[in-house]
Amino acid sequence: MAGSSSVVHRLVVVGADAAGMSAAHQALRTARAAGVDLRVVALERTRHTSYSACGIPYWVAGDVEDGDRLVARTAQEHRAAGIDLRLGVEAVGLDVAARTVTGVDVATGARTTWEYDDVLLATGAAPVVPPWALDADGRVVPGVRAVKDLDDGAAWVAMLAGAPRRGVVVGGGYIGLEMAEAFVRKGLATTLVTRREVMGALDPDMGARVREAVERAGVTVRVGEDVGSLTVGPDGRVACVSAVPTGSGTAGPAAGERFEGDVVALGLGARPRSELAVAAGVAIGDLGGVLTDDRQRALGPDGAVLPGVWAAGDCCEHVERHGGQRVYVPLGTHANKQGRVAGENIGRSAAGDPEDGTAGGPARFGGVLGTAITRFVANGVHVEIGRTGPTTQQALDSGRDVASLVTQSTTASGYMPEASPIAVKVLAEKGSRLLLGLQIVGGAGSAKRIDTAAAAIWLHARVDDVAAMDLSYAPPFSPVHDPVQIACRRLAERMQW
Amino acid sequence: MAGSSSVVHRLVVVGADAAGMSAAHQALRTARAAGVDLRVVALERTRHTSYSACGIPYWVAGDVEDGDRLVARTAQEHRAAGIDLRLGVEAVGLDVAARTVTGVDVATGARTTWEYDDVLLATGAAPVVPPWALDADGRVVPGVRAVKDLDDGAAWVAMLAGAPRRGVVVGGGYIGLEMAEAFVRKGLATTLVTRREVMGALDPDMGARVREAVERAGVTVRVGEDVGSLTVGPDGRVACVSAVPTGSGTAGPAAGERFEGDVVALGLGARPRSELAVAAGVAIGDLGGVLTDDRQRALGPDGAVLPGVWAAGDCCEHVERHGGQRVYVPLGTHANKQGRVAGENIGRSAAGDPEDGTAGGPARFGGVLGTAITRFVANGVHVEIGRTGPTTQQALDSGRDVASLVTQSTTASGYMPEASPIAVKVLAEKGSRLLLGLQIVGGAGSAKRIDTAAAAIWLHARVDDVAAMDLSYAPPFSPVHDPVQIACRRLAERMQW
Repeated sequence: MAGSSSVVHRLVVVGADAAGMSAAHQALRTARAAGVDLRVVALERTRHTSYSACGIPYWVAGDVEDGDRLVARTAQEHRAAGIDLRLGVEAVGLDVAARTVTGVDVATGARTTWEYDDVLLATGAAPVVPPWALDADGRVVPGVRAVKDLDDGAAWVAMLAGAPRRGVVVGGGYIGLEMAEAFVRKGLATTLVTRREVMGALDPDMGARVREAVERAGVTVRVGEDVGSLTVGPDGRVACVSAVPTGSGTAGPAAGERFEGDVVALGLGARPRSELAVAAGVAIGDLGGVLTDDRQRALGPDGAVLPGVWAAGDCCEHVERHGGQRVYVPLGTHANKQGRVAGENIGRSAAGDPEDGTAGGPARFGGVLGTAITRFVANGVHVEIGRTGPTTQQALDSGRDVASLVTQSTTASGYMPEASPIAVKVLAEKGSRLLLGLQIVGGAGSAKRIDTAAAAIWLHARVDDVAAMDLSYAPPFSPVHDPVQIACRRLAERMQW
Repeated sequence: MAGSSSVVHRLVVVGADAAGMSAAHQALRTARAAGVDLRVVALERTRHTSYSACGIPYWVAGDVEDGDRLVARTAQEHRAAGIDLRLGVEAVGLDVAARTVTGVDVATGARTTWEYDDVLLATGAAPVVPPWALDADGRVVPGVRAVKDLDDGAAWVAMLAGAPRRGVVVGGGYIGLEMAEAFVRKGLATTLVTRREVMGALDPDMGARVREAVERAGVTVRVGEDVGSLTVGPDGRVACVSAVPTGSGTAGPAAGERFEGDVVALGLGARPRSELAVAAGVAIGDLGGVLTDDRQRALGPDGAVLPGVWAAGDCCEHVERHGGQRVYVPLGTHANKQGRVAGENIGRSAAGDPEDGTAGGPARFGGVLGTAITRFVANGVHVEIGRTGPTTQQALDSGRDVASLVTQSTTASGYMPEASPIAVKVLAEKGSRLLLGLQIVGGAGSAKRIDTAAAAIWLHARVDDVAAMDLSYAPPFSPVHDPVQIACRRLAERMQW
């Protein structure tokens, strides 16, 4: 590569998953188009690159036959694109003044230091593992496991191959729900323990609909309980967990309720891996994530851009698009988009391109709405969940005056065999009449409708706008008015001008 | 009803299907809220009200067991809401100066004249029946039938109960495709004859994908042919139709190709029923439909609003939201929305409310994008179709400088068993970068994604906006980037700033 270009620019990418590799490839494309010889080194502490963490529950459930299928781009593919990818190298030092990154080979302990012109922090997220899941040596008790990376996935496939009879899922969010599905489909007697209502990303009245569906599939659900301890069996593996009421449940259980489980899945969320950034003096937000501007430039402690330091993906906090508040939404969609934004800007910067003078301006990340979907399909139950924008509580917390309602409709025209119930909750701001958020719980064909609302919210639509839109209709797909539209129309009618 | 209110206002609604009855109920709600005693008479020439014409092919196919299930609101329900509904009464005269409507009882021939303060024309559409389908007396030859109203549906159910062996469908649009599906599912050897590529509402390259799917299901498809004559068998029923090349087909057939058919479905579109309006001097557009403003006030020959005359639904021409050109899109979604707009404005007008002074302004119909979906599911083939906005040709015809591309993706993450191919064609305007149109052809889960694009186009989004949106992702529902978003991003990248 050397010699043909007049300019050499060095980028070190820390973390070779969605954000890091999106950035690396985009930076290469942008730099090459500008005739810049960009040299990219990517450090990855694991042996895996660019995989779908969201696919792991489906691998565990048996929908995906092999973890390799979850890999979007292999190490070979990254290297073929010209990226100097170092697997099994953990970045342990970042000197933003000297512009160096130091890495340790996790197998040999060998240390290497790379100089950079730009560094991208894409260190991702770590699953939350509570103290009760650890033994005296700080190791996770066998039979208990999070669901975060490909090693977790392989461990779960192996554990379920051992034909356990009882499974406990701790946490009622996306991962919890998806692992409960996997357990039920694998024939385990399954208990789901969750501090708040199932699907805490929804309003409680919508979450309750999900809980009822999961219960219909045979899952024992305990809402308002927090696991506080576990008991290890004679084989050294988990035997049961003990829960205590949190006071937020709908049905208060007896203190110290015990749930037997041969396996225990941890679905307690994730936290940003920001240790490297913290040590280097990069600004960290209240939620523990790296702070950046909307070009993915990392900020320093004074809030100013740190020259040459970029960050993207699950190690970062995000900005809620409308409210502007910092949120933490570790999702591959954002990681990919932020990586592309960072890569584009790094590539232009490498080319000496004054970003603001570029046609179209610099690449910017537009913020998050918190759009998310999942489903639970087992034992004849099919429930889909979609959400976007703030919940009612989040909207109230941000000082907005809101109106909301829930509409019951069907996914298809009522006379069609495909028609399933669908409940849509819509949330709008009084006065401005802006659509703020929307939540969906319903049968097959429900969840992806959330994108209509996400598009509308992204573009600052009022509920009246959604009510007027020319959305699609045909009997196998929708009633004459789409359920999302019906909900918005009814709320528009109810809100006084 | 009389006596309790100080004001009496008379509304005559001509046509008691989607537009007419939406308007009637909305006008009653609005007027009652204002304390006005609105008297509504609704004249309907058939015996049916408020039914789903779009559901008829599914009734014919056997998905719906009874035509009564297609009725959204019965005559009894309309009457219970206070509407004086006259079934079997055809409006034959409208005097806009005298403000009277004259109707004829189609059974008895009795004539009645109603005075009105406001009249709403909601006379709907009639199927196109070509001359070759008629016998010497002008009657449709037995075995040949359109698919427009509940009588057609009942006739088709009866015809297919006679176990015909061969079916011909004339016309490759929505109804044609849906009837081809019904024929195949009922076991008929099916031929589809269409003047242009299948699904002429799509660009030809996307329509070709639909054709290939339909052919995989065993349908014989003839593109570029027009039926010119038919042959009647010894039983007086249709025996075969003869087609001639139109010159627009991909494979020119021999002149006079004959297709045997025990039954022949006409899917040649519909035309506005505007005879009453024409005779009354209401303005008619080039497409044959009643012209209105966006409040659904009918226009006179001079282009000014005709006092007291309103129109809504399939008898009207529509305005394309962005281009402003008149289009004819007979669809229940528009009929319902226009009916509500008309009803709201009629109700306010009855209350003496100066519309423009009302908070929120008068109700307005926001135009059409031409959003539509359907599917073809038979013989192991499942293809879904969605479209919104102009086709490439329509955009060029309206003088826009456009860029487009087709993206191949999957409906779910590629490693999931649900993943099916999906092709997305996206069309944007150069310079403004506005998303103009989007077309989808793909497997299960494809079509309803069109609503994301419809929302974006409705709200004047650029392709860059769609590329940046926070749309939903989970492996059973989508790749990390939704196919609609991928298509927009790729086009945004390709378009020069």
